[in-house]
Amino acid sequence: MTAPERTPAGAPISSVLIANRGEIALRIARACSELDIRTVMVHSTADRDSPALRLADQLVQIGPAAAKRSYLYPPAILEAALSAGVDAVHPGYGFLSEDADFAEMCEAEGLTFIGPPPSVIAALGDKAQARKLAAGAGLPVLPGSPGTLSHGQVAKEVADEIGYPVIIKAVAGGGGRGMAVVRDPRDFARAFAETRVSAQAVFGDGRVYVEKYVDTARHVEVQVLADGHGSVVSLGVRDCSVQRRRQKLIEESPAPGLSPELTTRLGAAAVACARAAGYRGAGTFEFLVDAEGGFFFIEANCRIQVEHPVTEMVTGIDLVREQLLIAAGRPLSFGQEDVVPRGVSIECRVNTEDPARGFLPTPGLIDEFVPPGGPFTRVDTHGANGVLVSADYDSLLAKVIVWAPDRDQAIARMSRALREFRISGRGICTTIGFLQDVLDDPLFRDAKHNTSLADAMISVRP
Amino acid sequence: MTAPERTPAGAPISSVLIANRGEIALRIARACSELDIRTVMVHSTADRDSPALRLADQLVQIGPAAAKRSYLYPPAILEAALSAGVDAVHPGYGFLSEDADFAEMCEAEGLTFIGPPPSVIAALGDKAQARKLAAGAGLPVLPGSPGTLSHGQVAKEVADEIGYPVIIKAVAGGGGRGMAVVRDPRDFARAFAETRVSAQAVFGDGRVYVEKYVDTARHVEVQVLADGHGSVVSLGVRDCSVQRRRQKLIEESPAPGLSPELTTRLGAAAVACARAAGYRGAGTFEFLVDAEGGFFFIEANCRIQVEHPVTEMVTGIDLVREQLLIAAGRPLSFGQEDVVPRGVSIECRVNTEDPARGFLPTPGLIDEFVPPGGPFTRVDTHGANGVLVSADYDSLLAKVIVWAPDRDQAIARMSRALREFRISGRGICTTIGFLQDVLDDPLFRDAKHNTSLADAMISVRP
Repeated sequence: MTAPERTPAGAPISSVLIANRGEIALRIARACSELDIRTVMVHSTADRDSPALRLADQLVQIGPAAAKRSYLYPPAILEAALSAGVDAVHPGYGFLSEDADFAEMCEAEGLTFIGPPPSVIAALGDKAQARKLAAGAGLPVLPGSPGTLSHGQVAKEVADEIGYPVIIKAVAGGGGRGMAVVRDPRDFARAFAETRVSAQAVFGDGRVYVEKYVDTARHVEVQVLADGHGSVVSLGVRDCSVQRRRQKLIEESPAPGLSPELTTRLGAAAVACARAAGYRGAGTFEFLVDAEGGFFFIEANCRIQVEHPVTEMVTGIDLVREQLLIAAGRPLSFGQEDVVPRGVSIECRVNTEDPARGFLPTPGLIDEFVPPGGPFTRVDTHGANGVLVSADYDSLLAKVIVWAPDRDQAIARMSRALREFRISGRGICTTIGFLQDVLDDPLFRDAKHNTSLADAMISVRP
Repeated sequence: MTAPERTPAGAPISSVLIANRGEIALRIARACSELDIRTVMVHSTADRDSPALRLADQLVQIGPAAAKRSYLYPPAILEAALSAGVDAVHPGYGFLSEDADFAEMCEAEGLTFIGPPPSVIAALGDKAQARKLAAGAGLPVLPGSPGTLSHGQVAKEVADEIGYPVIIKAVAGGGGRGMAVVRDPRDFARAFAETRVSAQAVFGDGRVYVEKYVDTARHVEVQVLADGHGSVVSLGVRDCSVQRRRQKLIEESPAPGLSPELTTRLGAAAVACARAAGYRGAGTFEFLVDAEGGFFFIEANCRIQVEHPVTEMVTGIDLVREQLLIAAGRPLSFGQEDVVPRGVSIECRVNTEDPARGFLPTPGLIDEFVPPGGPFTRVDTHGANGVLVSADYDSLLAKVIVWAPDRDQAIARMSRALREFRISGRGICTTIGFLQDVLDDPLFRDAKHNTSLADAMISVRP
């Protein structure tokens, strides 16, 4: 076999290496298949029987179960990509998706990295730098430290100045980790030190910054698509306020109760920030919206998000397809005026965790797996009868996504879908019951909830 | 247990007996569940392990495998409904769904029959009478006999007058049966006699009529919803031109290549006909559209159709939900101006048949059943691992439905979904390969096909 020709960014893509696992690997394989793109899927030894692998044209085993030696190990991924002769690498979410160094290594090998340019990932991936960039683009940010802080006493003075509660955030944090809320000045020094130590351990980067913490806010984010030809379009908003310890559980689009005017302003802010950053691809700009309708930029995510399907359901736009087309250098085939969200979509994340034991992950073997179906009901999952849920990866097993003309119908449809979902297996627990409780909660039903809802529900459970 | 109170038509419905099986039983159960309606599902002994039964709140076994003694046997259904104390009966499609006598028996027992009034079913179910009614409402009909014909020589004179080819149709026909096309006058007498005999045998009604046959026509039908309060709305058109021996295989909405003006005229014609008939509920008015854009009413279907999901996908309206609300006496919550079809939806019927042996049904035990998933992909099915496909019922195993912004993307998505579908089992064959051939056919891709496409493809197969 001769060495494959290398494809510069923006060249046609006829084959893609999927550098991920689980439901998002399936999701990417489907989008590729519809574009007649050949797929190569990598997998660890733990995933060798995953149903996700069935949809790939070629498989490459890249290492053991431990992600650090497989999905998080760039040399293994790159070797698989080069030996399979693919044009491009799709990183999915998590793992190496926001690793600027990995993106750069791909480009250096002539592989198209399906995501923003490495420099953009680096700039937005550093939360303190992203804050500055957003402020420079005219976006409101929460009061906070001008940059990172390393000295505890200086940081405390900054926090005192901002006023409590404050949140200490790792610049490299993500997925709800690397954060600590401080409500009492006396707790600050210890929380500061702990966050730095844990950020260093988890992300290999101990730098942190301090920001005002808003208790009763909504988490609202804007989906953006930017091609390499100057077109940047926002695809409406998602409300992700149902979070347990800052990990999203339920997402929806549009954001209930958000005025059309504020929705438009958020979209424009996200587009401005994307333009300022030189963004390309699919990206998400996250905001807090307070009870008075004020909004503040919090961070940007340089990848496809877990919750992207709710945007697809209301806009009709296939975001992974668009990622692939943008990476192949194609201009967007639609403009801002063509994005007309319709109805309401809700996503519930079904995790293999035990709500009765602090949401402890429950790995194990699935005996029975019957996902729901029916009209306007989509389940993105790698679950199936006989699948072994590994303790090595995160506990997301399935995303149930529904659409309906209005929010009440969407909630009724989601409740029906969750009732219909059958998952059982030795040791396996799921969050389905808890999700159902949230859907039944009057605050959620009336869209009067904020980011504290789920944690409050958990704390009052027997 | 005291006798349950009877509910007059138009009263609230809190429980429904689902008088059907397979995918449509599941479909109805889901709609009921989302409306908090209790469901009672009847089943034959052959279906006692059907996955469809899992979604019902209560099960009643009504008889043996033979439909004539279970799903087609009104006393068994009525007894189940009365003993379970339901408010209403949903007949689905096929079986008793267009049996005016059964509808009347339900009403006589105080059960709401979810469908049009019995008198409307009787009038439209008689194809010759429906033709007259449509002509009276100003709809174009094909040249044909003014009523039914019983004398072969008289019928032949009518056919000669119309001009060949002609089609002989049983007034009670349906599902592609009870019809014969005659191209040569010398074949008429024999075809006439045969159609009468077979119609008597199959439908218990040997009456037939004769109509002009159009070879190169499209089959286009209009979905209508009519409430009991004077509101009649059309929900766009479906093209069902891909048929094997007049049995639909692939359906789509909107009808490709049909002008907006003609689409609007068809919708108005269907609404006029529904009004003239005093229609209530969900119904379909079928038309032939010839190569010159002329259209002719052919028949009406007084029930939910197999292909209803493509209309749901483009309009966002849940048709089974609307059936339930209309039967409960609620006025439609939307008007004609609110129906704004978006994008393109295609449905493929996956039957357990062997295309290589004349589409012979292949009953058997399913070993592996993995339906496709992903964005804008819906599978309505009662299939699952371990399901026994019975020879007693029709061979429809699954409906794969996709949506996309345009037809090319919808075809690509459907091809991907069909490639992804895994069905295997001892003796089981499916039509998936044939469906894929149709999707790949240039005539279909360019929307230049008509109702003869599938039969022509079969006749040239090796």
